[in-house]
Amino acid sequence: MNIAVLGAGNMAWHLSKALIHAGHPVKQIWNRTADKAVALALEIGADSITNLNQIDTDIDLIIIAVSDEAIASVAKELKLLPQQLLVHTSGSTVLDVLLPFTQKAGVIYPLQTFSKAVELDFSQIPIGIEAFDESSTQALFNLVKALSTKTYYINSQQRLILHTAAVFACNFTNHFYSIAQALMQQSGLDFNLIRPLIQETAAKVQQVLPSEAQTGPAKRNDQLTIQKHLDLLQTNTAWKLLYEQISQDIVKMYAKDTSSLK
Amino acid sequence: MNIAVLGAGNMAWHLSKALIHAGHPVKQIWNRTADKAVALALEIGADSITNLNQIDTDIDLIIIAVSDEAIASVAKELKLLPQQLLVHTSGSTVLDVLLPFTQKAGVIYPLQTFSKAVELDFSQIPIGIEAFDESSTQALFNLVKALSTKTYYINSQQRLILHTAAVFACNFTNHFYSIAQALMQQSGLDFNLIRPLIQETAAKVQQVLPSEAQTGPAKRNDQLTIQKHLDLLQTNTAWKLLYEQISQDIVKMYAKDTSSLK
Repeated sequence: MNIAVLGAGNMAWHLSKALIHAGHPVKQIWNRTADKAVALALEIGADSITNLNQIDTDIDLIIIAVSDEAIASVAKELKLLPQQLLVHTSGSTVLDVLLPFTQKAGVIYPLQTFSKAVELDFSQIPIGIEAFDESSTQALFNLVKALSTKTYYINSQQRLILHTAAVFACNFTNHFYSIAQALMQQSGLDFNLIRPLIQETAAKVQQVLPSEAQTGPAKRNDQLTIQKHLDLLQTNTAWKLLYEQISQDIVKMYAKDTSSLK
Repeated sequence: MNIAVLGAGNMAWHLSKALIHAGHPVKQIWNRTADKAVALALEIGADSITNLNQIDTDIDLIIIAVSDEAIASVAKELKLLPQQLLVHTSGSTVLDVLLPFTQKAGVIYPLQTFSKAVELDFSQIPIGIEAFDESSTQALFNLVKALSTKTYYINSQQRLILHTAAVFACNFTNHFYSIAQALMQQSGLDFNLIRPLIQETAAKVQQVLPSEAQTGPAKRNDQLTIQKHLDLLQTNTAWKLLYEQISQDIVKMYAKDTSSLK
């Protein structure tokens, strides 16, 4: 399948490179900001286009990888041919958003955190797909199976739930790393001191479920330690409030398990 | 140094095994609940004792690894000899808590998340130490250098800050993995789908700082997606509130960076 990618953000960048790497020709890159399209097109050896009606007639698959609120407006500008398959890559946007424009519609949803600066092994990334009809489903499965060993079908409602879960497990988690970074910087502590802890926290739940891996003052309902931390955080009311609420949530979840000392 | 470990929780368990592994003889284990002391003593080939006045006269180092609120009462029960060094392992307890009982007092603080079921490579764990006098400091450095390649001096106030940072970076992070687990379970999604994302989120900040690795709807100030997630969470008011507050905190932190699409 000849592919055009619309967008040049983190998702477009990583997905295009993975497709090329798997032998799928990504031939055209479009982006609202032209220089970003040029940069990605250069990186993967594709053509950049500045107008959505410049998509070639030999393109079989058009991947919309723009911000969620721009998906419909980008789709609307396309002059689609009957055989062209149109997909988006959004976790929180229903498949139906594409149906006003074509019934050959689908979703490719790689669940991972993408930053341009960090290389990724796409073969280990779970990729969820959804499509409106059976033949599009099959075409998308054939495509993503070349990218990853972990492919699965997921409908729009489940994908929204998965995306919400991912915000907690990835985005909020990284923000908490940032809070740790800020607290440590303020008192001259090297962030390297906490990196092994972060690594091990993620490594543990590769083997067991998070509910089995919980540790810390709130898990032990250790109010003495919790109070010391709250006192330390009193100059940052937002972080103090977060500390209180999350600790309460943990205490509630593990209230019955009071056996362990530490 | 001959060592006695007081406590048989996760910290006592992992530290005792690491000390034995590094060639330091842990000879006695005490715990308020006797059968837990017996279990750990059996595991490492030490003697278990049921009374704090049974500590042998040839013990050089006594490690208190009990819950924070029990440290002082355990120390008070000891009949210390002048040459015996007394340390605790608490992140949030000052060194001074031991000074009423001896001036040969210190702290050994391995910064890691300990679960009995998960084996650990102690050599990669940063170990902070603190002691009241110079000779105790030297003795503790000599000890922990056999355990880990990452040893450093840290005072009580810095240790409290580091422990607070660790609660965010580890304990709260793991709780958010649990929230993801719960959301996914409710709709029949396999937790394996999100494990690579968790791994990569932690792996990224081994290379860059968390403030450089942030992604997600709040980072992009994508209010459309945020609202969809809040709607999904409306049946769980605690998690909805957390989602709102953390998103606000992220939006605030990255407010100036509005250039990236995704």
